[in-house]
Amino acid sequence: MNTQQIEDVIRGWESAIQAGDRTAILANHTPDILMFDVPEPLQSKGTSEYSKTWDLFYSVGTPASDLFVIEELEVTAGEDVAFATGLLRIGGSAEPVCRLTLGLVKQDERWLIAHEHHSAPHKHE
Amino acid sequence: MNTQQIEDVIRGWESAIQAGDRTAILANHTPDILMFDVPEPLQSKGTSEYSKTWDLFYSVGTPASDLFVIEELEVTAGEDVAFATGLLRIGGSAEPVCRLTLGLVKQDERWLIAHEHHSAPHKHE
Repeated sequence: MNTQQIEDVIRGWESAIQAGDRTAILANHTPDILMFDVPEPLQSKGTSEYSKTWDLFYSVGTPASDLFVIEELEVTAGEDVAFATGLLRIGGSAEPVCRLTLGLVKQDERWLIAHEHHSAPHKHE
Repeated sequence: MNTQQIEDVIRGWESAIQAGDRTAILANHTPDILMFDVPEPLQSKGTSEYSKTWDLFYSVGTPASDLFVIEELEVTAGEDVAFATGLLRIGGSAEPVCRLTLGLVKQDERWLIAHEHHSAPHKHE
């Protein structure tokens, strides 16, 4: 049941990103969310800094159903701590181009995203 | 107690990387370890592919106490699932240049690393 609840949170967050719904994107995060995003900065801490990473994202991305799509989503859930992994198609890309890891905690019967790590691998020189 | 056990696993892994001890690096991982590394490929699955990511690492890095240093390590542990985050100084860098997320599971009273996500942020163009 935990796994299903977590998948619902993640898929709801994915839908909010596709819709460009900035309020819904933030709906299930801890206030101290730690974000490691694809572009700099190295890290962003807390709701305000986390929200700025989406300012940057939407400065180049337009809301659409294929803007941000999670593939190969795998959830590993305990009773009150979980992590999830997936690959990301971004901006209509045919294949995944980024990786996603989420850390989640259960608080007051709700699963919240406490950590996000998004990245694109560096190409070999 | 779980948090301390997990920190011991992570610090032991860090020491093995610094020593270039390839056996010790693999000592506390699940056989289906999912690796998202700094350079390509997009993902590596299982012990054999995971080990190859260290072939690549040591093709440019020489074992040393400052080769791979985890800073700001934070562990979020449940009873049998946990995640951990940190920043990485690499190859003697004075400041952290990469981010690290680990996913762990407890099996037969041992904490094992089931997932690693290492990345360097992309610079703004």
